[in-house]
Amino acid sequence: MVKINTISTLKIAIAQLNYHIGNFELNSKKIIEAINEAKSNKADLIIFSELATCGYPPRDFLEFPDFINRCNEVLEKIKEESENIGIIVGSPTINPIPEGKDLFNSAYLIYNGKVEGIAHKALLPTYDIFDEYRYFEPVEKFEVIEFKGKKIALTVCEDIWNIGNDNPLYEICPMDELIKQKPDLMINVSASPFSANHAEDRLNIVRENVYRYKIPMFYCNQVGAHTEVVFDGGSVVANANGKIVAELPYFEENISYFDLKEVNDFQDEDNLQAKNKIALIHDAIVLGIRDYFGKLGFKQAILGLSGGIDSAVTLALAAEALGAENVMSVMMPSQFSSDHSVNDSVKMCELLGSPVKNIAIKPAYDAFLDMLEPHFEGKAFNVAEENIQARSRGLILMALSNKHGYILLNTSNKSEAAVGYGTLYGDMCGGLSVIGDVYKVDVYRLAEYCNRNGEIIPQNIITKPPSAELRPNQKDSDSLPDYNVLDEILFQYIEKRQGPNELIKMGYDANLVRRILKMVNRNEYKRYQTPPMIRVSNKAFGMGRRMPIVAKYLS
Amino acid sequence: MVKINTISTLKIAIAQLNYHIGNFELNSKKIIEAINEAKSNKADLIIFSELATCGYPPRDFLEFPDFINRCNEVLEKIKEESENIGIIVGSPTINPIPEGKDLFNSAYLIYNGKVEGIAHKALLPTYDIFDEYRYFEPVEKFEVIEFKGKKIALTVCEDIWNIGNDNPLYEICPMDELIKQKPDLMINVSASPFSANHAEDRLNIVRENVYRYKIPMFYCNQVGAHTEVVFDGGSVVANANGKIVAELPYFEENISYFDLKEVNDFQDEDNLQAKNKIALIHDAIVLGIRDYFGKLGFKQAILGLSGGIDSAVTLALAAEALGAENVMSVMMPSQFSSDHSVNDSVKMCELLGSPVKNIAIKPAYDAFLDMLEPHFEGKAFNVAEENIQARSRGLILMALSNKHGYILLNTSNKSEAAVGYGTLYGDMCGGLSVIGDVYKVDVYRLAEYCNRNGEIIPQNIITKPPSAELRPNQKDSDSLPDYNVLDEILFQYIEKRQGPNELIKMGYDANLVRRILKMVNRNEYKRYQTPPMIRVSNKAFGMGRRMPIVAKYLS
Repeated sequence: MVKINTISTLKIAIAQLNYHIGNFELNSKKIIEAINEAKSNKADLIIFSELATCGYPPRDFLEFPDFINRCNEVLEKIKEESENIGIIVGSPTINPIPEGKDLFNSAYLIYNGKVEGIAHKALLPTYDIFDEYRYFEPVEKFEVIEFKGKKIALTVCEDIWNIGNDNPLYEICPMDELIKQKPDLMINVSASPFSANHAEDRLNIVRENVYRYKIPMFYCNQVGAHTEVVFDGGSVVANANGKIVAELPYFEENISYFDLKEVNDFQDEDNLQAKNKIALIHDAIVLGIRDYFGKLGFKQAILGLSGGIDSAVTLALAAEALGAENVMSVMMPSQFSSDHSVNDSVKMCELLGSPVKNIAIKPAYDAFLDMLEPHFEGKAFNVAEENIQARSRGLILMALSNKHGYILLNTSNKSEAAVGYGTLYGDMCGGLSVIGDVYKVDVYRLAEYCNRNGEIIPQNIITKPPSAELRPNQKDSDSLPDYNVLDEILFQYIEKRQGPNELIKMGYDANLVRRILKMVNRNEYKRYQTPPMIRVSNKAFGMGRRMPIVAKYLS
Repeated sequence: MVKINTISTLKIAIAQLNYHIGNFELNSKKIIEAINEAKSNKADLIIFSELATCGYPPRDFLEFPDFINRCNEVLEKIKEESENIGIIVGSPTINPIPEGKDLFNSAYLIYNGKVEGIAHKALLPTYDIFDEYRYFEPVEKFEVIEFKGKKIALTVCEDIWNIGNDNPLYEICPMDELIKQKPDLMINVSASPFSANHAEDRLNIVRENVYRYKIPMFYCNQVGAHTEVVFDGGSVVANANGKIVAELPYFEENISYFDLKEVNDFQDEDNLQAKNKIALIHDAIVLGIRDYFGKLGFKQAILGLSGGIDSAVTLALAAEALGAENVMSVMMPSQFSSDHSVNDSVKMCELLGSPVKNIAIKPAYDAFLDMLEPHFEGKAFNVAEENIQARSRGLILMALSNKHGYILLNTSNKSEAAVGYGTLYGDMCGGLSVIGDVYKVDVYRLAEYCNRNGEIIPQNIITKPPSAELRPNQKDSDSLPDYNVLDEILFQYIEKRQGPNELIKMGYDANLVRRILKMVNRNEYKRYQTPPMIRVSNKAFGMGRRMPIVAKYLS
């Protein structure tokens, strides 16, 4: 057995990597390459993020014993690489006790072929997109781990988040226990997902921890998108004085090195990154698209380009993620389409240099109307005819997708998704919803941001009044309130859980409030069948918002 | 204050009711009517099920303070009705302590206008379809509640389920604590959903409790379907000797009365109901359809009748749930359809006396092929053309649904859903999937059961080889293994979480196992967008099975 030396400092590497869930070969390769890089940089210790062996969130794969075995096989490989370097890595552990859940969510410290210590997670996020108590047993005992003469308070993600707010979710605070054992530093392995204000929250929680416990913190986050959930990285190093020594880059892989003594001595200005909300949302979506395609092994996207703002922004974001040449736009005008819809769309594809097709839907629309005429029983034009148009378009896009191997991008925004302003199996088709967590007012801001380096989205697309163009002279404002008002009410209801009484007290018109909440709640059935939406807010539709369909509340 | 008298027995009513989530008016009306009936029957005590005020599962509505207020308003109304009758009813309680989750999942004992006792739930199911730790704080202290001289050990659902198995999910056992206070009887308020073997499990757990604690148990379950989850009722009364005094009916509302002394003295044979698996699945699905329509306020269904077994069984079940006259079948033959497909379908609708339309899809199919010809670039017939057929059918069904107010029923089975043998936005459309949790081999058994009182499903539909009829002479067996083998492997993987090594050890062909698991895991993206499926197994696709889409495990 190798003797552990006491040294006065440590060189610590933070490896902020982009894993692929269940892709054990890729994940171990990435981890081992990082270890080798850290070795050649003479690091004493390298830190990987929460559940790095399998990628986070593995969801119900955790219920499969074979899946856990494969995580353990990765740990074995890591042990073989651990000569002269300490490796901290997240991986599930089988709970040896029959009582309680089958697993722990653990951080391992591996050194010279041996597990020198394990910290199991105590605070299991079970809200929004998180389901950790579904799988993991929480622990209530905590021990610091000694490494090269330093005592490490090792915690997993949420374990450092239960201080300093008015409504803590949990009854215990792991660091309050660990600090009694006089650790020299805190290390936290996380998988903490992006939302527009989360990087700020993360810095604040790290600051609160170092202020309270007066030792430095090394916080390692993962980066990368897993279907709807984007992890932004932004790993943090802070010292006992609350100085932010480093914030690792957002939305990209990075391995950074820190000398513990230098961290402790750091006196300069905080090293912070810019946090412009729209820019962050933009970058999160671009990574969300890129990883969706890259991890599924696809290169090319297709979308319906209507001439409106939503599909234009979707195209701009997809072009940035995949390359303009890899995004096929399809214009599918009908008798109700304006001339500017096609002209603006063509102009945008020219500006981008991306391919575009024009397929008028009239032949299919007419065929369906003929076929259905005897069965419509002379009833007036209604949503049925509108939806035939939207669904013919969906069918065309999916046919091209099936023929050429494109993935269809959905172009709906959050405001529409909220009130059910969209056609199931029509414009709600797609493998991935790009802006489904972006309210309409922010879609306009994103459009301006996409034009920051020159016009990509023609101004006319940004300035014209929104319309679905499914009947003559239709405008969104015919059936929906102004988006400024709509989006505020939606935000208060969806993100802040304000009820009708609270909203009316805030000054919104009572009838409008009731009408909007009814639209939201009546359209759960539609959202149940929509594609996964890249999450950029604290409360996105999809896995983090779980609603009954057959209910009658405010509906 | 009214003095509580000590009496030697109690007349106890169990109210097994069908609630509507969030429909507080309806739920309070039902509860109050039951209370009045119990009063006129001179009951001392009436028991309602878990979260009866709002209906179970309310899911994320629990995060809305307004929703909790409305539950409390129902409790206030119940108090007003509680003169001379004890009322046990489930409802959420706000956690007064800032630490921990915001709510408890509680059972109230209300009597003469006052809350006489509250039991909060300790064991919070957080697995499969259950998310209780998302909302509720567990308790660890337990007190019996005295009522008319009897000590009641009052528990909520899962609290009685942590005994007698090898891998208990929790570390504590509430009844082990309560029994120390020498209760006279156990009362459990539940919302315990149906699966094909669950009624048997429920009886066993009740028996294990009465054997262990040697006092009787009154177990009240809710009944009724909430989108995909069906509650079967089957409330139980058992005495200290383990005798099942009563099992309330499955799948219907019921109020039954029991004299505590008579229960204790009961010596006869157990009063059990029949538990034929296929009959139970049949009844669960019929209730699932009926409540989906009834609670949404719809009367009429539509479906595509292909001539195959799946749509035939779906039609038979829908006809039983809604009345044959309320189910519109649409045959949509293509050039690849066999003559028998139309003939068998017409025959079935004649047998049922249900309406049927015939709409050939050729005009739409040809229109799309013409429109897409320049864009298909001469590539060979493939899944694109197959899917145009399936999606044209989906479009026709949705158009009729939009025009006439039908709800479209999806006809896919679990085996297809598992391996992705279906077309998104085509035959995977629908508001509700009727047999999406029934493996193909059980679909045949259901078909035979549907014919138990005379032929409804023509024998030729049952005996012909299954085919999607999307290309010439296509048969399921061209691309899928025999359903007997496929369904066994799917069952072992999906329901039993067996991995590839375990399956191969069981004797299944290694290549076949890998191929099937790959199909299952690669098709998460399709299942993400399918309609809710009525759950009849222990592991249905949908809310109870949460998988990453962009993963690479066995895929």
